[in-house]
Parts: sequence; C-alpha cells; structure tokens
Amino acid sequence: MKAFQDFYTEEFSHCYGCGRLNEYGLHLKSYWLDDDPTSDTAIAHYTPPEYATGGYPQNVYGGLIAALLDCHGNGTAAAAGYRHFGRDMGSLPSLRYVTAHLGLDYLAPTPMGSPLDLRATIQEVTDRKVVMHLELWAEQRLRVEGRMVSVLLR
Amino acid sequence: MKAFQDFYTEEFSHCYGCGRLNEYGLHLKSYWLDDDPTSDTAIAHYTPPEYATGGYPQNVYGGLIAALLDCHGNGTAAAAGYRHFGRDMGSLPSLRYVTAHLGLDYLAPTPMGSPLDLRATIQEVTDRKVVMHLELWAEQRLRVEGRMVSVLLR
Repeated sequence: MKAFQDFYTEEFSHCYGCGRLNEYGLHLKSYWLDDDPTSDTAIAHYTPPEYATGGYPQNVYGGLIAALLDCHGNGTAAAAGYRHFGRDMGSLPSLRYVTAHLGLDYLAPTPMGSPLDLRATIQEVTDRKVVMHLELWAEQRLRVEGRMVSVLLR
Repeated sequence: MKAFQDFYTEEFSHCYGCGRLNEYGLHLKSYWLDDDPTSDTAIAHYTPPEYATGGYPQNVYGGLIAALLDCHGNGTAAAAGYRHFGRDMGSLPSLRYVTAHLGLDYLAPTPMGSPLDLRATIQEVTDRKVVMHLELWAEQRLRVEGRMVSVLLR
C-alpha cells in the first residue's frame, strides 16, 4: 500500500517529519488500520534514532513525539478529506491540511529502543476541517494521547 | 548569563531539543526576559536549519515548533520551580520538570529564514506543577500560542 504522504504533490513534500523529498527528514508513513480504506483509524510506526532522547537517555524526546503525531494527524486528515469529498487520494487539485490545534497529554514516559505505534482516529470531518483523537503507544502501553484539528488549506 | 538548561545535572542533559550533552541536538537555551530573575516571562531564540521545513519549503516545520516550545516550557518550569521553593538554580537535589500537557494553536504559518522568538509566561506555580502560556513569534508576528503544564519529577 502507498502511504498517505506518498500522495502529496511535489511542492508539499518537503516536510521534515514526513516529506518524501526532505533528504534529512524522518519520512513518517501513515496508513489506514488494516489497510482498510473505510476505517476511521490510521496508524504509523516509527523507531526513534539513538540521539532522539529526552532529558534522560532512556526516554524518547517528547518534542519528537509531538512532531510525529502532528505529521500523522495531518496525513490522516488529508486521507479523511479525500474520502469526505468522494475523491481519489492524490487527485488534483490536491487537498492539503495543516495543523490548527494540537493538544497532547503525556501520560507516561516513552521508552527508547522499541517501535512507536501512532494512531489517529477521526472524530469529525467537515468541508473545512478534520478533528482527530491521537494516541502514541510503546511496548503495549498508551504513553501520550491528544486531540488535533487540521484545517484544509485554500 | 547561564541558560536554564545549563543548570541541568549531567544525567538529565541528554534532551535532543535542549540537552548540552546531546551532540546531535538543537541546544535550545532559555533565559528570563531582560535577564531579570524576578520576571514571569522567559525567552529563547532559535533559527531553524534549512531542512527543518514544513510541507512547503518556505515554512517552518510545525513539529519543530512544538518541540522547541516544549523544551522552552520545561526549562522555564525548572527555573520557576527553583524560585518557588526559594532555591538556587542547579542546587541539589535537582528539580526536573516534564511535560504533562502541551496544547498549541497554530495561528499563521511561520516563515523560514529568520530567528524564532519563543516566550513562556508563568501563570501558576504549585509544589507539583507549573502552568505557562506559550508564544512563538517570527518577523514581529505571533504565529503559535498555547498552554503547557509541566510537572515536577519525584
């Protein structure tokens, strides 16, 4: 399956977190859960590099977690937007979403050394915005959750 | 003046965003406004590298903004905590704060190519937590604002 971000047009593919054209970037990739295009949940996986630690070297940097969830949310919003408008992903003119609000609750430290499991579940889609619940899991435990509002760029 | 982060003990100085011992990190440095240790506002400045773009190459990556504000907030919380407890910054046992909640509203795109001006203003300090209002300015315009709750690590 192609990731949501792989449908972004070239001009919008420079994101440090998820742009395929950013050679220094993290290249996060988001997909519908179980590759089911009717799902309301999208997932992404990412294993932080060794230097992406928080204050203590055994924990993942909270800022990286915010950044990954932000990219995953905007990718999910784009996929939800195409579905909302009844259009194929990647069809032109492209639908691009950007963050209006990102609110995160850090429930527990996130350990280094294992893949992070990111989830975005769609709560509301209008012609203007997508509202999502976000979760970050590591080692089968919920570490961070939050809410995000992505808005369609005009 | 020494930055707040320069008082962190060695074991807590590995943060990718602001740890002095993270050789790949961003090394964000936070200070009281006007170097006034009685101020309720702390500032930091950071100019993103060329690759830290959002989807469009002319804008700063929103995830980086979240990460920088998170580090700036936790540094400010530590400084506020030492002041709250009537202790010198860096005195032992150290007071370390971590993010409980980070909520950001992205008001306008943040342009690449100029220094970012980060601000954290203390709204509430208790024995357990510090609540702050966060702002990110670029080119004399407010781009992102938010609220953060940092809690004291036991």
